[in-house]
Amino acid sequence: MASLSCSSDLATLINHTAAANYLCNQFDSISRKLNDATYAVDNTYLLFSAYLVFAMQLGFAMLCAGSVRAKNTMNIMLTNVLDAAAGGLSYYLFGFAFAFGAPSNGFIGRHFFGLRDYPTRSTDYSFFLYQWAFAIAAAGITSGSIAERTQFVAYLIYSSFLTGFVYPIVSHWFWSGDGWASATRSDGNVLFGSGVIDFAGSGVVHMVGGIAGLWGALIEGPRIGRFDRTGRSVALRGHSASLVVLGSFLLWFGWYGFNPGSFFTIAKGYGGLGYYGQWSAIGRTAVTTTLAGSTAALTTLFSKRLLVGHWNVIDVCNGLLGGFAAITSGCAVVEPWAAIVCGFVAAWVLIGLNKLAAKVEYDDPLEAAQLHGGCGAWGVLFTGLFAKREYVEEIYGIGRPCGALMGGGGKLLAAQLIQIVVVCGWVTVTMGPLFYGLHKLNLLRISRDDETAGMDLTRHGGFAYAYDDDEDGSSRGVGLMMRKIEPASTSPSPPVPPLSISSL
Amino acid sequence: MASLSCSSDLATLINHTAAANYLCNQFDSISRKLNDATYAVDNTYLLFSAYLVFAMQLGFAMLCAGSVRAKNTMNIMLTNVLDAAAGGLSYYLFGFAFAFGAPSNGFIGRHFFGLRDYPTRSTDYSFFLYQWAFAIAAAGITSGSIAERTQFVAYLIYSSFLTGFVYPIVSHWFWSGDGWASATRSDGNVLFGSGVIDFAGSGVVHMVGGIAGLWGALIEGPRIGRFDRTGRSVALRGHSASLVVLGSFLLWFGWYGFNPGSFFTIAKGYGGLGYYGQWSAIGRTAVTTTLAGSTAALTTLFSKRLLVGHWNVIDVCNGLLGGFAAITSGCAVVEPWAAIVCGFVAAWVLIGLNKLAAKVEYDDPLEAAQLHGGCGAWGVLFTGLFAKREYVEEIYGIGRPCGALMGGGGKLLAAQLIQIVVVCGWVTVTMGPLFYGLHKLNLLRISRDDETAGMDLTRHGGFAYAYDDDEDGSSRGVGLMMRKIEPASTSPSPPVPPLSISSL
Amino acid sequence: MASLSCSSDLATLINHTAAANYLCNQFDSISRKLNDATYAVDNTYLLFSAYLVFAMQLGFAMLCAGSVRAKNTMNIMLTNVLDAAAGGLSYYLFGFAFAFGAPSNGFIGRHFFGLRDYPTRSTDYSFFLYQWAFAIAAAGITSGSIAERTQFVAYLIYSSFLTGFVYPIVSHWFWSGDGWASATRSDGNVLFGSGVIDFAGSGVVHMVGGIAGLWGALIEGPRIGRFDRTGRSVALRGHSASLVVLGSFLLWFGWYGFNPGSFFTIAKGYGGLGYYGQWSAIGRTAVTTTLAGSTAALTTLFSKRLLVGHWNVIDVCNGLLGGFAAITSGCAVVEPWAAIVCGFVAAWVLIGLNKLAAKVEYDDPLEAAQLHGGCGAWGVLFTGLFAKREYVEEIYGIGRPCGALMGGGGKLLAAQLIQIVVVCGWVTVTMGPLFYGLHKLNLLRISRDDETAGMDLTRHGGFAYAYDDDEDGSSRGVGLMMRKIEPASTSPSPPVPPLSISSL
Repeated sequence: MASLSCSSDLATLINHTAAANYLCNQFDSISRKLNDATYAVDNTYLLFSAYLVFAMQLGFAMLCAGSVRAKNTMNIMLTNVLDAAAGGLSYYLFGFAFAFGAPSNGFIGRHFFGLRDYPTRSTDYSFFLYQWAFAIAAAGITSGSIAERTQFVAYLIYSSFLTGFVYPIVSHWFWSGDGWASATRSDGNVLFGSGVIDFAGSGVVHMVGGIAGLWGALIEGPRIGRFDRTGRSVALRGHSASLVVLGSFLLWFGWYGFNPGSFFTIAKGYGGLGYYGQWSAIGRTAVTTTLAGSTAALTTLFSKRLLVGHWNVIDVCNGLLGGFAAITSGCAVVEPWAAIVCGFVAAWVLIGLNKLAAKVEYDDPLEAAQLHGGCGAWGVLFTGLFAKREYVEEIYGIGRPCGALMGGGGKLLAAQLIQIVVVCGWVTVTMGPLFYGLHKLNLLRISRDDETAGMDLTRHGGFAYAYDDDEDGSSRGVGLMMRKIEPASTSPSPPVPPLSISSL
Repeated sequence: MASLSCSSDLATLINHTAAANYLCNQFDSISRKLNDATYAVDNTYLLFSAYLVFAMQLGFAMLCAGSVRAKNTMNIMLTNVLDAAAGGLSYYLFGFAFAFGAPSNGFIGRHFFGLRDYPTRSTDYSFFLYQWAFAIAAAGITSGSIAERTQFVAYLIYSSFLTGFVYPIVSHWFWSGDGWASATRSDGNVLFGSGVIDFAGSGVVHMVGGIAGLWGALIEGPRIGRFDRTGRSVALRGHSASLVVLGSFLLWFGWYGFNPGSFFTIAKGYGGLGYYGQWSAIGRTAVTTTLAGSTAALTTLFSKRLLVGHWNVIDVCNGLLGGFAAITSGCAVVEPWAAIVCGFVAAWVLIGLNKLAAKVEYDDPLEAAQLHGGCGAWGVLFTGLFAKREYVEEIYGIGRPCGALMGGGGKLLAAQLIQIVVVCGWVTVTMGPLFYGLHKLNLLRISRDDETAGMDLTRHGGFAYAYDDDEDGSSRGVGLMMRKIEPASTSPSPPVPPLSISSL
Repeated sequence: MASLSCSSDLATLINHTAAANYLCNQFDSISRKLNDATYAVDNTYLLFSAYLVFAMQLGFAMLCAGSVRAKNTMNIMLTNVLDAAAGGLSYYLFGFAFAFGAPSNGFIGRHFFGLRDYPTRSTDYSFFLYQWAFAIAAAGITSGSIAERTQFVAYLIYSSFLTGFVYPIVSHWFWSGDGWASATRSDGNVLFGSGVIDFAGSGVVHMVGGIAGLWGALIEGPRIGRFDRTGRSVALRGHSASLVVLGSFLLWFGWYGFNPGSFFTIAKGYGGLGYYGQWSAIGRTAVTTTLAGSTAALTTLFSKRLLVGHWNVIDVCNGLLGGFAAITSGCAVVEPWAAIVCGFVAAWVLIGLNKLAAKVEYDDPLEAAQLHGGCGAWGVLFTGLFAKREYVEEIYGIGRPCGALMGGGGKLLAAQLIQIVVVCGWVTVTMGPLFYGLHKLNLLRISRDDETAGMDLTRHGGFAYAYDDDEDGSSRGVGLMMRKIEPASTSPSPPVPPLSISSL
């Protein structure tokens, strides 16, 4: 509706230049204001979605903190804060460029380093912020797998490598307009005539984080005491179920930014009905997300009751998150009822993989490899089975194949299988050698003494908690643990008898 | 502004079909884009409001966790997670259909089971999500009343019944276009020419949850030790004030989705001024909500200081929430100054009911019946007294009666009184027999031993906290409590003298 | 685009009244709907930003709680709840009027008391709510500085005075259309032809809160035991690192409302490109905020590792917040790379001021004066150095001077320096005498006994935590501390040997 063409077109028709100009100016002014309103609502939507995804980092922090023993709380929380902070710098400097720096090739992006020449016609700062919040999630997953036994310097190295290179490359492949496997390739030349549908990243985010964690945890081995001499699994329970529940709920909350937010824009009608458009698809995505998580939580509740005999909130939270990790791939293109199937299977995938992990003496304090890797992979597959034609076409264009069980043939399913293989392979060939190298250089695992004493005391400035409040400050910075180790004679406040002191 | 009628109308007028088509196409294209933008902003508004309401579930979880003793933390948090998860499934399968399945009758809805034939012209998935987040709140309130002494299986039964049937029916009556007492009845035939104004649910949500809790707590009786032999009230303090404050603040945060979000749409001018519209009413609703809660908090602070002699943050938080529960009914139709009146009275309602509860030996660990039931009922009444004509007409239509103290006569007040009676009656005849039946079947209350030991150890897989970090994992899963009960000789780590071990 | 003028203008041009009316009605109807959509998106944006800023109050509460000793947790959390609640009433009654009651003079506003004659053409309830959320932040900062040793009645007095008078005046000067130093003065007659650019309040909020805290902490002196006899600094560690991290992440989350939200509206094109407008500037502001905090966190991590030898998450969190406090002034008008400079320096400002504080035996439990006062002042200066011409002009108008290092000369820098001086002066002459008066009246500092025992037991109804769950309720309300003081013979539950009881 450019003013010039409007005026000349209209002037020809009504043969009156002044009137044509008047009318075209009206159209112009309205169009500009409408354009502003549309950008405003799309950016509002994407920014607040990004904030929600960021809140997941807080969720991770609390979930991780609660899931480890108190003596390693400072350590794990520091990694969570740094995922966000170091990720902010590295994603700004090069991560975003590797992922979305268009135009480029199918393998890696090459523009927008340090946000140079940004924003563009098609993407704005809100998109950068949203993608940053995704990038930091992957590293958070991995730090869960190797918690309670990994040197901090190892964390700094693998985390930078993962957030700054490994993950951006994967997101380039599957999500950028240039990616070789992307369903939104700008040249339309999509893999198998379909492209991979990993809408919000069961593969791109969860599998990447989970498989990286798998290699780390495999290479450094289980925590001391995690399996007894006979190989029997001994639970090393986390120190606070309240923090676990807090973290899980925050992740649930943030997932409404993660999944529905992955539409990026909301002001787009799907034609026809008028009242039906991207806003409906977004709402439906929030519903499928809710149902998959809910179903997985309930399935876990009753399964664990049967298997273990307890109604356990920690297990239910993990089941819930497994359901979310699974639906993340197909959330936008499946029916609500299919999300229930997705969640039901995800719960059993997690239970099965946890059984397997116990059998092979694999120790993952947050079940991160099983949950994000395993349920994530199931989610990618699920999309290949249950994606609905109508929804796929609304989002990816007319004629795209849908799920194998929905009458779509095997093309989408094949693409999804390719994604699973490729993500496993890429993360394995990059993160595997890195963890192995750190291991060989004695940079990966902490010493036996440090592990027993806890990393907080030895490396992070002290114990995370002090509920006792001695009057004497001299014992602070040392905390509860220390006092147990110290002989009673060094007890800091003489007037109180040693027994009460050593007691909390 | 359909293209066809526009073209023919305009062609007749300017006698030039091509020009008319050109202009009408312009109008059409603009209208479509404008339509998209309007749906986009309304859905963005409603979705993010729904996310905020969902965050209240986290708030409830933390508030409940902090308000019970540590030994029952896993239990209560599990009920909070399940409120959301089980509620997700049941509300999808039938709850939403009972509540809003139009067209139907005045008593119960009958469409949209499993979201069949949804979305419609007037409501979208965002509306479902928003209503789901409301439905799960009611069950959360009830689980507070009967905390620390209720069998988990009883929870599963009453909670499904409440979320899936009792609550949806009530919301149908007062909020659906078919409800017999709804102020938004589509046929305009409203009760007393007014309909009940329960804008965000002081009655529909808070009274329902509170009265259900009242019956549950009455039937199973107080916790062991809650009243001594002489009937004197003995506070069984919750285990973490930090969690209580965290939960209260999260509820405050979420209430901005609960109350202002209940407008459902925001892009609607109220005519005349241009800059004044639903967005202003929404902002005003956020302000009245803030003021009612703030006033109730301050009133409680000073009242309790006078009555008890302490400045107590837990009491202040409860007062705050009482103010919110009360303003929820009238938040959209009262002036900010009236919200202050509402909060002031709500604080005293809560104080009075707590006194009464202590006198009659009624034990409600979260004061949920007093707070949500009592302050909720006051809120319904308050709306009948203070609703302002102008605001009522903007929202419900010209000519609707306003509050009795605002010159509106007694019609609205009568309708509000009817709501109080009907909600009390309906919840009593449904939940009362249910709780009584569970009680008679010995399914309601846990055993004396379980109550003393705490439900976490006996039913939920262990104690919620472990701040000590023994090197030896064998005592895990048992936790602090156990060690106190065990003889010192079974003490797990021999090198440390028994005294320090039994100490934390 | 008023219908009347449109119709007559157009009728003259096309000489056909009916056609002109038809077309103008179309334009009119579209314009009204577009107007509604624009107000809707702007208010949605501002309201949800306000909710995020409100969430910072929760962040403060958790940060403060975790940073003090367990025995003062109830006390500090009560002040955080009251900041919000009492602030709600006082800001409604007069604070908002002092700050934004236009038209008025350069010093103090004088309309909108109790929101009378509100909303106006230019600002709505959402603006009030947003400004309220800002006002309560300032008081929160101050309560951190004087934590663990201040009488509750002193808190009530200074907090009302700060939120209701001192802060509103400052915000009037720098942010209202009448303020003498405001860059958005409605008469265009700005200070030095520039006005102060304190976009989201490094000066107006953070410096005000920090300097008020400085005077309070200076006048009442350090906590008992904070410096030993030789003047050596002894850390009095907070009781929960988890709460500190929770609070810091919540503040980060909320800062996305604080900084980008300070644009107030989002639906405003900046001309030219069409896709570039206020939504882009808002996104960029979120990015600069993220980068400044991230850089400060990383700088602190490595600096503290070198200086102290630990990787400390508490220090990293404080560094992070220092970066945020600094970028808050210039967030909207600097390039992302400049935000990195801002954060880097902020980290060192905080480290340096903390060193200085230890040297002069200044005790600030939350480092609030150093962090909010010091980094805030650096932020104000930073804006005067690094503000970019293009961004300044987009926001404040063509021809406004930009930063001294960006080719803008010294005018903006001079204005920024004036702000630092004036804020320091104003807060000093108001809060200094107030704290001194309270001190002289023995209303400021608690007694030595109360400080040793902790304020929670003596003033706030009991200890915040109870992880042990005695069966006997009689020791509740007393908590852990008490039992340590009591002789073992009063031990409440006889069957368990005294030693185990006094333990835990």
